[in-house]
Amino acid sequence: MSGGGIQQGPDLKVMFSPRSITIVGVSNDPGKLSGKPFHFLQRYGYQGDIYLVNPRYRQIDGVRCYENVAKVPRQADLAIISLPAAAVPQALEECAEQGIKAAVILSSGFAEVGEKGQELEDRIREIATRYRMAICGPNCAGFINVTEKVTASFVQALEYGELYPGPVSFVGQSGALGTAIMAVAARDLIGFNFWVSTGNEAVLTFADYVSFVIEQEDTRVVIGYMEDARNGEALKQAAYRALELGKPVAILKAGRSEMGAKAAASHTGALAGSDKVYDAVFRQAGIIRAHDVEQLLDLAVICSSPRQPEKPRVAVATISGGAGIVIADACEEFGLQLAKFAPETIQALQEILPPFAAINNPVDLTTSLLLYPDLLTRSMRAMLVDPGVDNLLIFLSLQYSKAEELARNIAEVATGSSKPVVVSWMGMPREALSILRDTHIPAFTDPTRAVKAMALLVDYNRRRELYLKLNSKYKVAPTHSSNQAAAKEIIKNSRISGKGVIPEFAAKQLLRAYDVPVPRGIMVKDEDELAQVEDKITFPVVTKVVSPDIVHKTDAGAVILGLDSVVKMKEAYRRITMRAREYNPDAYIQGVLVEEMAGSGIEVIIGIKQDRRFGPVVTVGLGGVFVEVFKDVSLRPAPVTEQEAREMLQELRAYPLLLGIRGSEPGDINELVKVVSRVSHMALDLKNEIAELDINPLIVYPDRYGVMAVDAVVILQKESHEGAVPDSYHN
Amino acid sequence: MSGGGIQQGPDLKVMFSPRSITIVGVSNDPGKLSGKPFHFLQRYGYQGDIYLVNPRYRQIDGVRCYENVAKVPRQADLAIISLPAAAVPQALEECAEQGIKAAVILSSGFAEVGEKGQELEDRIREIATRYRMAICGPNCAGFINVTEKVTASFVQALEYGELYPGPVSFVGQSGALGTAIMAVAARDLIGFNFWVSTGNEAVLTFADYVSFVIEQEDTRVVIGYMEDARNGEALKQAAYRALELGKPVAILKAGRSEMGAKAAASHTGALAGSDKVYDAVFRQAGIIRAHDVEQLLDLAVICSSPRQPEKPRVAVATISGGAGIVIADACEEFGLQLAKFAPETIQALQEILPPFAAINNPVDLTTSLLLYPDLLTRSMRAMLVDPGVDNLLIFLSLQYSKAEELARNIAEVATGSSKPVVVSWMGMPREALSILRDTHIPAFTDPTRAVKAMALLVDYNRRRELYLKLNSKYKVAPTHSSNQAAAKEIIKNSRISGKGVIPEFAAKQLLRAYDVPVPRGIMVKDEDELAQVEDKITFPVVTKVVSPDIVHKTDAGAVILGLDSVVKMKEAYRRITMRAREYNPDAYIQGVLVEEMAGSGIEVIIGIKQDRRFGPVVTVGLGGVFVEVFKDVSLRPAPVTEQEAREMLQELRAYPLLLGIRGSEPGDINELVKVVSRVSHMALDLKNEIAELDINPLIVYPDRYGVMAVDAVVILQKESHEGAVPDSYHN
Repeated sequence: MSGGGIQQGPDLKVMFSPRSITIVGVSNDPGKLSGKPFHFLQRYGYQGDIYLVNPRYRQIDGVRCYENVAKVPRQADLAIISLPAAAVPQALEECAEQGIKAAVILSSGFAEVGEKGQELEDRIREIATRYRMAICGPNCAGFINVTEKVTASFVQALEYGELYPGPVSFVGQSGALGTAIMAVAARDLIGFNFWVSTGNEAVLTFADYVSFVIEQEDTRVVIGYMEDARNGEALKQAAYRALELGKPVAILKAGRSEMGAKAAASHTGALAGSDKVYDAVFRQAGIIRAHDVEQLLDLAVICSSPRQPEKPRVAVATISGGAGIVIADACEEFGLQLAKFAPETIQALQEILPPFAAINNPVDLTTSLLLYPDLLTRSMRAMLVDPGVDNLLIFLSLQYSKAEELARNIAEVATGSSKPVVVSWMGMPREALSILRDTHIPAFTDPTRAVKAMALLVDYNRRRELYLKLNSKYKVAPTHSSNQAAAKEIIKNSRISGKGVIPEFAAKQLLRAYDVPVPRGIMVKDEDELAQVEDKITFPVVTKVVSPDIVHKTDAGAVILGLDSVVKMKEAYRRITMRAREYNPDAYIQGVLVEEMAGSGIEVIIGIKQDRRFGPVVTVGLGGVFVEVFKDVSLRPAPVTEQEAREMLQELRAYPLLLGIRGSEPGDINELVKVVSRVSHMALDLKNEIAELDINPLIVYPDRYGVMAVDAVVILQKESHEGAVPDSYHN
Repeated sequence: MSGGGIQQGPDLKVMFSPRSITIVGVSNDPGKLSGKPFHFLQRYGYQGDIYLVNPRYRQIDGVRCYENVAKVPRQADLAIISLPAAAVPQALEECAEQGIKAAVILSSGFAEVGEKGQELEDRIREIATRYRMAICGPNCAGFINVTEKVTASFVQALEYGELYPGPVSFVGQSGALGTAIMAVAARDLIGFNFWVSTGNEAVLTFADYVSFVIEQEDTRVVIGYMEDARNGEALKQAAYRALELGKPVAILKAGRSEMGAKAAASHTGALAGSDKVYDAVFRQAGIIRAHDVEQLLDLAVICSSPRQPEKPRVAVATISGGAGIVIADACEEFGLQLAKFAPETIQALQEILPPFAAINNPVDLTTSLLLYPDLLTRSMRAMLVDPGVDNLLIFLSLQYSKAEELARNIAEVATGSSKPVVVSWMGMPREALSILRDTHIPAFTDPTRAVKAMALLVDYNRRRELYLKLNSKYKVAPTHSSNQAAAKEIIKNSRISGKGVIPEFAAKQLLRAYDVPVPRGIMVKDEDELAQVEDKITFPVVTKVVSPDIVHKTDAGAVILGLDSVVKMKEAYRRITMRAREYNPDAYIQGVLVEEMAGSGIEVIIGIKQDRRFGPVVTVGLGGVFVEVFKDVSLRPAPVTEQEAREMLQELRAYPLLLGIRGSEPGDINELVKVVSRVSHMALDLKNEIAELDINPLIVYPDRYGVMAVDAVVILQKESHEGAVPDSYHN
């Protein structure tokens, strides 16, 4: 069953900016969940028309209440439904018949409660498909369009304070956590544009909302809480589009641990797939992964500024030498650098600051700042003009009596510069925060958190730049039609033999079809054929049994190395076939593979696996203990560009071994990178056929000497999925 | 020159609880640093007598002002000095002559400004030693005894609000960061007992203050900011004492990175030694290392409670399923476990909670809590009686209208249980925070930070328990007098040869003196001696040159392996001596070492290095790429118990190799652990002789087959430091 997705074309614009709203199942008690949306719409001053539906009332707060949807005299843009689950499908159908194109279903009691609820949810999906309706939920807390005061939600955060508009949009798979985030954000003066609780995502999924909000002018950054991507491909597409637009998407993906994944499964039935794959997808598509709730909000703060940190060199102005050291530590830990000042900058600072102040970066303004607040602005200007300075980070504490003056001064200098100025202010007074927020100066309390947020943005912008340079990879997925045809033929033949495993010989043919180097080899089916082998191959050779029933050839004793004559090959042939039969009397023995011996080099393992959310995933790691003991593996969803393949290798802890250690030569990384990328294209082309691939080992020779896949095995999908609709989220 | 230290016996009690104070160099302007202490003492209501000294005034605020210290009619307990640096020594001497036993020197212009300041600081130290004075500073922000309102400080934090007494004492090497911490803590309702800015530590060092505050009844936890331990041994002793008392010491040690260390050197001239050694010392002595300022305060919060998390199993009650998953992730990441509920607990919860609530841990109370606040208390009780639950973590958000009620309910249940209850409350209202602080319930806003703080305490308490069980290791440092004597003889003989290096043969004798197994071997000085070797040794053997001038024997070709007859040994002898002479014609060749060949096994490297703050440090790692490429090394200051040695091994990423992988046998970890401990005792016994030791490799055989040091080299200290006063901080 196919899930939602923007390709079905429901109109999210109508949903998020309705000119009129029908509330179905409204209560006259604003203390009840079903009473809150109406209450909030009125309280926050929604400007459109509101129609109420509930047979139990004639009016609420002077607004007429209709018996059912059909009785509502005008067609609204949006329906808010908070009926008991069982009554929802019919009400939805009535809305649809009236021409309503969007609905928020706040009710629970659907897929999350089991089979019966699942049936109700299926009906909702069916109605939505039939009428091309945009549906938020069910089992959600609704959404808020802050700018237009559409409070289609019952969230507690709306009980307090006011809607504070701003450049942040939130999309979340937990209504309760979402409301907590909104409330904390409001207290910290972080303004929102859209806020969405996605619920069961029967129709619209997380990715659809992200796709929508990033296109809205007022949204500068998206923050999200996610347990399960559901539609992996749509998420990637949305993320790539956001990269193009330069609107950062930061997501707290929960369930990263085994215990967390279990809790997530019990929370929303999320079966999210491997968390490591999420890490890889996020890296690939430029989604910033927030570690925790606070960091998500920190990212909202730093991304809200029109001047985002893009490069790593940081100048630090601090009123505490100690804090300067804490900041220096954090810079190094998170991958930023302390800027090295030009001589002119040092001279300028010497003229500005008292003689006992440290002029190295971090610059200690000392407590003199208490007496002379212009020390800060003058120092800021001196540092910001230095071409070696990419960003300026200020550390302050207290300063209550001068807080407003300082904040205003900072804002004045910062908005006059194209370089990002970030403030960390321990015990920051509210007036100062307010000034800094209004002028879009990222302001934090803890200095380490400020550095971390800056570092995440610098990394994001580095990825983004690379992505833009490589020109929208996701649009131009390379195809290899000739290779594909050859490969599919090989797979077809293997399927005919009725086995789920493609053994070495055919697996290597498959690799060859994708230009992955394999040793020269010939399969012989008869001892006498060996006489002709001599002319086609160079000694020494290795001989191995070829049988789909014997995967562990070495265990069977069916591999013999280092043969350098026809006589020895013949002897080996006899011994191998004999041992293979002893090992598995029922084995179908196709023949014996005679292959040139591959020289030694660095052993690498390349694999393909299938992820339930993101499809084929390529893994790479070093042989020996590295993959098996240290789990030192890097992975990415296919396809993988050469640039990404290089990044994958750099992520390996064992990467130095590829660079050459203790005088050993560096490996041919350029060829390795090409092969990883080719394997990834194979993974994508043959995703409906190949369940798993293992190249183990691939020998990496010294630089310019290439690589060679020495052994490989392919496990096929149970049946070809060719032509099947990709599974989206219902398994 | 010897630094301060509690052994000199200045009385910190007099300093921190003075019955009277003389302020030398007082200003009548409370806006000036020299005017603030008097202003604060009056403002906060210090109960003792105050005498003022400044020839420029006759009185300030109605308090008489004397021309100089000698004129003050009564001897005070404490002097607060804020004169220009050059005038300080004389004033201090006058104070001392009057019998004043303690002084805070707030003035700057000492060691931090260079040679001239260093001279002034030396004079201060000399006076302090002569009169046994306790001196805080110079170049510090002073100290505060919150309980007794002794505000011997000029810190900005005192300008605002009031002193909030509590169980936290702070000791810090940055006055400005310390004041920021105090201010933020006050805003978060975290109360203090003592607050100290240590300054240049001319007399009293960081460790002295820690030693003092942990003995004070009102102090339950010490938080510190440190750049340089200065007196490493004193810090360890203070930490061990704190472990005994069960008062956690949490320190933010800055300068952990290269950039940070550089910034620290420029801040206070701190040359702190290797940060990795701090990590090891902290682990060894049970100091909790805070990663950043926020975490330091989080630790203050969790340690302030009389019920500290000690065991890892956590029950979670949450009003957000999403937050429950975030918490589950954090638990796994930081080493806690989600408790598994007993059937009775599940049954009890089923009766309490609505049918749609998740009864797995984390327990989702759902938004029903909004309507029925007693759901929380009843669930809490059910979980707290479960023997499988060690701690309870509650997640709340908002709940503004019910906040006080909820907080009071939580406090009631929590204080009635012996198990720690921790609250994380996003958007926690101040009234709730206030109730929770007053009842010592650790309360945080961010759930991940709550988990991290709990995990740090669980780890702390595990270490503490182990320490108490192993019964105060630091008191009973084992001595090996016979071994020591033998070892010193070997070193003496090596020194006579005039070389700074002890080559393999003697180095192995040294190891043997400490019961570190080495292969049986005989040194021969003459080819003919080889005939007699046959009876004493088992073939095959290896022969190696013995020369203090040839450290890299293999490079010289002066090692020949696998000899199994006298004839072959003789041939090898000739070849080795020839090659050695070719390699280094001036080399003094002592002879040729004939040694039994050691079988193969897991190769380990054990080393000794000297740290400038903590003395001899033992390192251990695996051979091959692990130490050299991956820097996978674990270290501890000597001495190291067997338990600690085991922990060192467990910290290695390559540890699984010792446990045996892919069917290989596990190594003899028990013997390895003993050898690491023995080497550490050697390091301590011979710390004045040995600069560096390298055992490379030590072969670890399969379990119960022992270990063997196959090669070793020792580099001696330039001269024996025997009898020298240990360098404390003046280099």
